[in-house]
Amino acid sequence: MHAITMTEPGGPEVLVWDEVPDPVPGEGEVLVEVVAGAVNRADVLQRQGHYDPPPGASPYPGLECSGRIAALGPGVGGWAVGDEVCALLSGGGYAEKVVVPAGQLLPVPEGLDVKQAAALPEVVCTVWSNVFMIAHLRPGETLLVHGGSSGIGTMAIQLAKAVGAKVAVTAGTKEKLERCAELGADILINYREQDFVEEIRQATGGNGADVILDNMGAKYLDRNVRALAVNGRLAIIGMQGGVKGELNIGALLAKRAAITAASLRARPVQEKAAIVAAVREHVWPLIEGGHVRPVIDREIPMPEAAEAHRVLEESRHIGKVLLVVP
Amino acid sequence: MHAITMTEPGGPEVLVWDEVPDPVPGEGEVLVEVVAGAVNRADVLQRQGHYDPPPGASPYPGLECSGRIAALGPGVGGWAVGDEVCALLSGGGYAEKVVVPAGQLLPVPEGLDVKQAAALPEVVCTVWSNVFMIAHLRPGETLLVHGGSSGIGTMAIQLAKAVGAKVAVTAGTKEKLERCAELGADILINYREQDFVEEIRQATGGNGADVILDNMGAKYLDRNVRALAVNGRLAIIGMQGGVKGELNIGALLAKRAAITAASLRARPVQEKAAIVAAVREHVWPLIEGGHVRPVIDREIPMPEAAEAHRVLEESRHIGKVLLVVP
Repeated sequence: MHAITMTEPGGPEVLVWDEVPDPVPGEGEVLVEVVAGAVNRADVLQRQGHYDPPPGASPYPGLECSGRIAALGPGVGGWAVGDEVCALLSGGGYAEKVVVPAGQLLPVPEGLDVKQAAALPEVVCTVWSNVFMIAHLRPGETLLVHGGSSGIGTMAIQLAKAVGAKVAVTAGTKEKLERCAELGADILINYREQDFVEEIRQATGGNGADVILDNMGAKYLDRNVRALAVNGRLAIIGMQGGVKGELNIGALLAKRAAITAASLRARPVQEKAAIVAAVREHVWPLIEGGHVRPVIDREIPMPEAAEAHRVLEESRHIGKVLLVVP
Repeated sequence: MHAITMTEPGGPEVLVWDEVPDPVPGEGEVLVEVVAGAVNRADVLQRQGHYDPPPGASPYPGLECSGRIAALGPGVGGWAVGDEVCALLSGGGYAEKVVVPAGQLLPVPEGLDVKQAAALPEVVCTVWSNVFMIAHLRPGETLLVHGGSSGIGTMAIQLAKAVGAKVAVTAGTKEKLERCAELGADILINYREQDFVEEIRQATGGNGADVILDNMGAKYLDRNVRALAVNGRLAIIGMQGGVKGELNIGALLAKRAAITAASLRARPVQEKAAIVAAVREHVWPLIEGGHVRPVIDREIPMPEAAEAHRVLEESRHIGKVLLVVP
């Protein structure tokens, strides 16, 4: 098969579409013939040499894909060869074939084609696990999403609105904020021109955000704590603004607030399966009912993955960038 | 009545036993004739001028007491004049009488006398709300308690052991660690001589602590994060080591860990009542069954509260210091 390989860490140009051996499904795994993968910021970090695949994971990048089941490993029930699926991966999605534990498979939701479904697994599982399973966003509460026009952001807006929460977003351009508004965002904050702490305070009658979904890490840590409501929960899923930051514990304590930080990729197989099962139960009906949809920025042929990485690094996208197997 | 009053912030000598007007119970409140109060570190901070009473609270110090109900305000059911009780207060426990919302009352547990019960409300509610309701300590997990010989610490050890957890403690003397061991602590760490991160790692086969109950704040923040297990929860309830500290978000994220910070005093009446109700349901049977007991360091006549504060400030105590109404 072909896959995107990297001979060394570096710029987008190190991503090369090359011939590699087919993977073989082990106990409890299936082989998926990939129709499309999707790009995540973690792939860029991996390409740069900052985020090595966990032990046992595919060496090729790609944390999600869609396609058709080509073979079942021993001990897999509930799935058949030919099933159209999408999958949460710990790597290997930038390829014609990938092996995945059966617990990380989801059916292609009714109403979507198999290619579109590649835009779902990573964002849906990340948002559901962090905003709902960890931070317990409740109807009537306010969620602040940083990077509202990203793949994660566009899904977080829709899921939070679907459960009856109020949604605030930050983004860097008027166009991106308008797209967030179309998806249902109530409070639009241009982080280049406005102070999000002040804006969220004013828009919530002084309360602040009950939950914040943050991809900035250190750079926003102090401001995020200030933007939290009493009993607020800050869920950190990325560190684009640095790894170490000063925490005002006094402010956290005065608000009885919580900070969590989590990534999907490093979770053991059982935890991923539990998240995927919860997503299938709670999110799939929302997608199949037309309440939530994947936001796809563009499709790029998988051999041109380098161009997809440039789009992400320059923040030219709104929603997900797909990589389509030729 | 008499109460401990303070004319100005300062050393223990500003605490004066003086005559003051009796408080009057309002809607949903009861008047308690106090038998004993107990001393908390927050009282010392309040005396020093660093921790003002919340709006509406008594101006006198004292976050817990025991005694007998002397009068019921309008709308109080389930309690009668003469009932022996202990109570979680937002202030006013250093006095002959105090008014308390009925939801913050607990009966004196069978097997204890009314005076001993003064040692329970603050520590039991703090430990139960933070370690169990917020951090969800589970059987088989490891709890690390900083200050294991404090009032909070001695209760945390016993409650965690009672639910089947493993308990590690830090303390500053051999005698204090021995008392912790008598209460059931499995892992004893002298913080003056040992590195608690290394000790907890070795004692847990490299896993670390699933839950940490911390009273040090900034000074221990980085080490606490390093001492956490995967999926670990750091529950901060005090800031004796400072308010602002550097947080390694990368380390938190790699462990999918959580940091919470909370105090009881600032919680609204309904939240306090929910905690007290949970304590009555889950902890009272453990006390009445003889599995958990208050650890009382000494009794001091309430007019000599200054001496009690000196004991706390010099860390001479193990467990709770009671203030007995003469």
